[in-house]
Amino acid sequence: MKSWTKLGLAAALIAAPSLGLAQEADTTPPMEEIGYIFTTFMFLVAGFLVMFMGCGFAMLEAGLVRQKNVAMQLTKNIALFAIAAIMYYLIGYNLMYPGDGWSIDMVLGAFSATSLEPVGLADTETDLTYASVGSDFFFQLMFCATTCSIVSGTLAERIKLWPFLIFCVILTALIYPIQASWKWGGGFLNEAGFLDFAGSTVVHSVGGWCALTGALILGPRIGKFKDGRTVPMPGSNLTLATLGTFILWLGWFGFNGGSQLYMDTAGNVADISRIFANTNTAAAGGAIAALILTQLMYKKVDLTMVLNGALAGLVSITAEPLTPGLGAATIIGAIGGILVVLTVPLLDKLKIDDVVGAIPVHLVCGIWGTIAVVITNGDASLGTQLYSIVVVGIFTVVASAVVWFILNMIMGLRVSEEDEITGLDMAELGMEAYPEFSKG
Amino acid sequence: MKSWTKLGLAAALIAAPSLGLAQEADTTPPMEEIGYIFTTFMFLVAGFLVMFMGCGFAMLEAGLVRQKNVAMQLTKNIALFAIAAIMYYLIGYNLMYPGDGWSIDMVLGAFSATSLEPVGLADTETDLTYASVGSDFFFQLMFCATTCSIVSGTLAERIKLWPFLIFCVILTALIYPIQASWKWGGGFLNEAGFLDFAGSTVVHSVGGWCALTGALILGPRIGKFKDGRTVPMPGSNLTLATLGTFILWLGWFGFNGGSQLYMDTAGNVADISRIFANTNTAAAGGAIAALILTQLMYKKVDLTMVLNGALAGLVSITAEPLTPGLGAATIIGAIGGILVVLTVPLLDKLKIDDVVGAIPVHLVCGIWGTIAVVITNGDASLGTQLYSIVVVGIFTVVASAVVWFILNMIMGLRVSEEDEITGLDMAELGMEAYPEFSKG
Amino acid sequence: MKSWTKLGLAAALIAAPSLGLAQEADTTPPMEEIGYIFTTFMFLVAGFLVMFMGCGFAMLEAGLVRQKNVAMQLTKNIALFAIAAIMYYLIGYNLMYPGDGWSIDMVLGAFSATSLEPVGLADTETDLTYASVGSDFFFQLMFCATTCSIVSGTLAERIKLWPFLIFCVILTALIYPIQASWKWGGGFLNEAGFLDFAGSTVVHSVGGWCALTGALILGPRIGKFKDGRTVPMPGSNLTLATLGTFILWLGWFGFNGGSQLYMDTAGNVADISRIFANTNTAAAGGAIAALILTQLMYKKVDLTMVLNGALAGLVSITAEPLTPGLGAATIIGAIGGILVVLTVPLLDKLKIDDVVGAIPVHLVCGIWGTIAVVITNGDASLGTQLYSIVVVGIFTVVASAVVWFILNMIMGLRVSEEDEITGLDMAELGMEAYPEFSKG
Repeated sequence: MKSWTKLGLAAALIAAPSLGLAQEADTTPPMEEIGYIFTTFMFLVAGFLVMFMGCGFAMLEAGLVRQKNVAMQLTKNIALFAIAAIMYYLIGYNLMYPGDGWSIDMVLGAFSATSLEPVGLADTETDLTYASVGSDFFFQLMFCATTCSIVSGTLAERIKLWPFLIFCVILTALIYPIQASWKWGGGFLNEAGFLDFAGSTVVHSVGGWCALTGALILGPRIGKFKDGRTVPMPGSNLTLATLGTFILWLGWFGFNGGSQLYMDTAGNVADISRIFANTNTAAAGGAIAALILTQLMYKKVDLTMVLNGALAGLVSITAEPLTPGLGAATIIGAIGGILVVLTVPLLDKLKIDDVVGAIPVHLVCGIWGTIAVVITNGDASLGTQLYSIVVVGIFTVVASAVVWFILNMIMGLRVSEEDEITGLDMAELGMEAYPEFSKG
Repeated sequence: MKSWTKLGLAAALIAAPSLGLAQEADTTPPMEEIGYIFTTFMFLVAGFLVMFMGCGFAMLEAGLVRQKNVAMQLTKNIALFAIAAIMYYLIGYNLMYPGDGWSIDMVLGAFSATSLEPVGLADTETDLTYASVGSDFFFQLMFCATTCSIVSGTLAERIKLWPFLIFCVILTALIYPIQASWKWGGGFLNEAGFLDFAGSTVVHSVGGWCALTGALILGPRIGKFKDGRTVPMPGSNLTLATLGTFILWLGWFGFNGGSQLYMDTAGNVADISRIFANTNTAAAGGAIAALILTQLMYKKVDLTMVLNGALAGLVSITAEPLTPGLGAATIIGAIGGILVVLTVPLLDKLKIDDVVGAIPVHLVCGIWGTIAVVITNGDASLGTQLYSIVVVGIFTVVASAVVWFILNMIMGLRVSEEDEITGLDMAELGMEAYPEFSKG
Repeated sequence: MKSWTKLGLAAALIAAPSLGLAQEADTTPPMEEIGYIFTTFMFLVAGFLVMFMGCGFAMLEAGLVRQKNVAMQLTKNIALFAIAAIMYYLIGYNLMYPGDGWSIDMVLGAFSATSLEPVGLADTETDLTYASVGSDFFFQLMFCATTCSIVSGTLAERIKLWPFLIFCVILTALIYPIQASWKWGGGFLNEAGFLDFAGSTVVHSVGGWCALTGALILGPRIGKFKDGRTVPMPGSNLTLATLGTFILWLGWFGFNGGSQLYMDTAGNVADISRIFANTNTAAAGGAIAALILTQLMYKKVDLTMVLNGALAGLVSITAEPLTPGLGAATIIGAIGGILVVLTVPLLDKLKIDDVVGAIPVHLVCGIWGTIAVVITNGDASLGTQLYSIVVVGIFTVVASAVVWFILNMIMGLRVSEEDEITGLDMAELGMEAYPEFSKG
């Protein structure tokens, strides 16, 4: 913070650490630093937008669970975000970027904590062609946290707090970074030509697979499926769900836009603009598709479907937000919205209880988005895309299932029947989200 | 997303599309691209702030309607935002910027969908003096969406979902872009010297006029005006209304700041700073004026008036957020706040039922703000400002009234009396925003 | 806003004010302006993030008070933000930066309103080594507003609206700027070597001290301490409290990151990245520490403690977010989280009623953070840090106590017993935040 008089340049020069000779009297940045500043700042802006998605998930999920489980859902969301921050710092980041080429050796050697550059880049030969390590770490961390946020919604209202949090530790330290390194760490999927721009597969399907295995092992909530019928358990607060959706929509500009990774040329910033516009229109397409389809199918618009439709559009465009034109992006998003409307009842038929619809949104549309890359990006091969979806899917299903099973064995995943009926808020936390609002 | 090892520059060069020779080894952007990058990025940041205003309106309106209509109000808000995204892409944007000079011919020829630049600006002679088309489209789209958001609040609690959404289609595809082209598309109002920096008239009064004609055609809610008295129908959730106001306040920095349109020089970024500071202080002036005035008039502070006062201050400064000093900006905003406090009861006397106060805030203060330009901007002519207010007003009133009438004829605008009493949530959507909270 | 055709450069040149020769045909910014543009834009982005913290505080506090006081808490929060905007403009900013060196004379002469640069920096010899006055004012203002926001939560549910607002006038016009000038205005604490990067002492402890003196003078809420026991009065809406915490977490990136004050070199932007990463991990550390500690101490996780733990981590890292590595930052934040969990019951023992926990979070962790600077910053002296904490503490305690006493004498600080039991919403405002939700 400013610690000098407004005119006192000398003090300013002391207060502001900088590269040795960078802070000259006219503070013109050296030409070769300008691209670095642009890209680094872009990562910080994109990163804080993605960080805010953690809030979006918390609000969405708090709005879609029943009143008696709201405080618990909030606790899980803020705790998992904090866990992701620490585990990705301690293990995940370096595990995900194991250096030149990916190999088992590198992975084993990569279990190290993240180090940032020295203050003011002092005494370093900084590579100015990309961005600061701090900004890259900050941005990448938020993707790891997002993956974790996806899981919590599906398993709401019945999973115990601590086993869930331990799962988050393993997901953010190991499962997410290992498979992410296959693509973004320069691993074998990347070398095979797999394209996943901002993570329809790497982030969203992985979150979705973990949610699916968890849901299968946990089983449905008491009373959800009764005598062959699905009992609706409406969310307690649709304004929160809508708020969460808007925040996620906002954050997605950082999620997809920042994944351009460079903002150092006119071409890159124009590409980021394309991505913003495509991301927005895909969300719109998904929302409108769900709006119209629920009207046609059920004769009534379903707000939660419209919200999930918007999110479906966002997930669907995430694997390739750059190459489509606005029309293609809208259609890719709209198909995502349709998939969600059709998949939600399908899950019910399979008696898979997904409280917030995260599996249709993140897994189904994550797969769809990854396939859709081939429509607009000539470099994509359908075979490679499918192969990568399957590889990541198998790994994540196996890894997450093993973790869920072990946790279930050791400490039990599911709250007691009594606690579930009482609600996790009173049973596990001893507090309520809305203590003064009487129940209807 | 990063798809190479941290040290592997070669991969990076492939992954990051860019202008032919832009991505050299040291990634220094070519000098002539720097201004373009600054301005484009500024549009993206300003654009996502304005996008978030869509969330602000949703929360504000959800907070100010009664509980039985909250889910519907949320549905309308997210749907209209999605509609704006698609219609402005399909028709609005090109209609609004019809190329050199505005004419009927140009408008008729301008019904075309928006195209973004090619990926990486490949094979183009890009004009580097402004910003990317994608960023400009993204930013401008959000203004169109804002105009539409203004309408939904006034007509809440009684208008049917689908006719409202069809109105939004026409507003965002035609009404908004046509009149906006008169000023921002280089049309006749612009040539006449009309000054409206960020849209007190072009955005806010247009939303306000559409809301007014809709309110007149719809009529007041059942029970609102009874035996010559106005029956208060307090909003169901003032925290949401406050949240919405804060979000709008935040978004307005993008709304007004981004309208500087350039961030490529010290002068431009200093002007954007002026605009941020003025926008903030005008909101503060409006809030404080409403705070004091409601205390004086009613012996009690009225929170909803304070919120609307802040919004009134924001609308009032929108036509000219640059030339005033902080003092003038505060006063212009404060007068806006006073106007809202005085106009709300006036509308009641006229038996115009504006559920959220959008007509006082956006129409009355939109007009006031447009007039106030003459106070601090020597280039403004009072005559031209008034002429433009009237021209835009007549066009919008006529166009919107025609659309409302036709929709009313074809499908009926208003829900049945029974549905209105039940609430639109259960009647039209079959769901409730807060199903577990019992009613008082 | 765009007021010319897309191709019409001539119009653009008129519409966009700029430095005399800055807007050449290729709009390349002059080299010496680039650093100025970077830093100025950074202040605007950081500033709007900190502005949003005003919303975060409003939501946090509205969620932690009881239902009958929610509308009042919202009113106080939006009003104090508006008051800060105006008072800091009228008096505070120039008082805080009294020019070369700080002295009584300078302070007395410094009671002047803030002036921004002329439009387009016309006819000025602008110092291009820093940032625009407008952006600096905007950014600094938000710190002043934050200080004020801290006070409102502690005193909730029993202080009258108007005396509280008058206190805010004095805090933002005088108390905050005077002590802030000692450090950030180049005053004697700065010259003594006091280090407080983004204001653990200057902002957070000052808010905390004002809250403490106010709480002591006001006394606890009726029924809070009864027969030697503390009666829990749980907040009415934990989703709002969580939302507020996430928003504060988001805003803190601007708070700490912007305090780097320069983004004109690779070194500075890399430092801002370090600060973002450290700020995030400190919050995570605080949240996790509170999560684990409440589980150990009470056998149940306490969501409000986790939220306050995250905030405690943020306050703790604020005095030095740059020099720590990620590990040290996590630990500094975690200790903050522990301090909050331990201090909340301590305040109860002292019968100090702090409704939202602002004293543990902002005062206790503000002090802790200021001391923690010595751990990672070799330039810090423990003696100077302690001396500065004490000096600022004594000044703020005395100044705020005097103001509280005078206000108490003149108009009474506390609502009547009857009004307090009824709730401030109905008693003082005549409205309710949730009029349709029946009370449990």
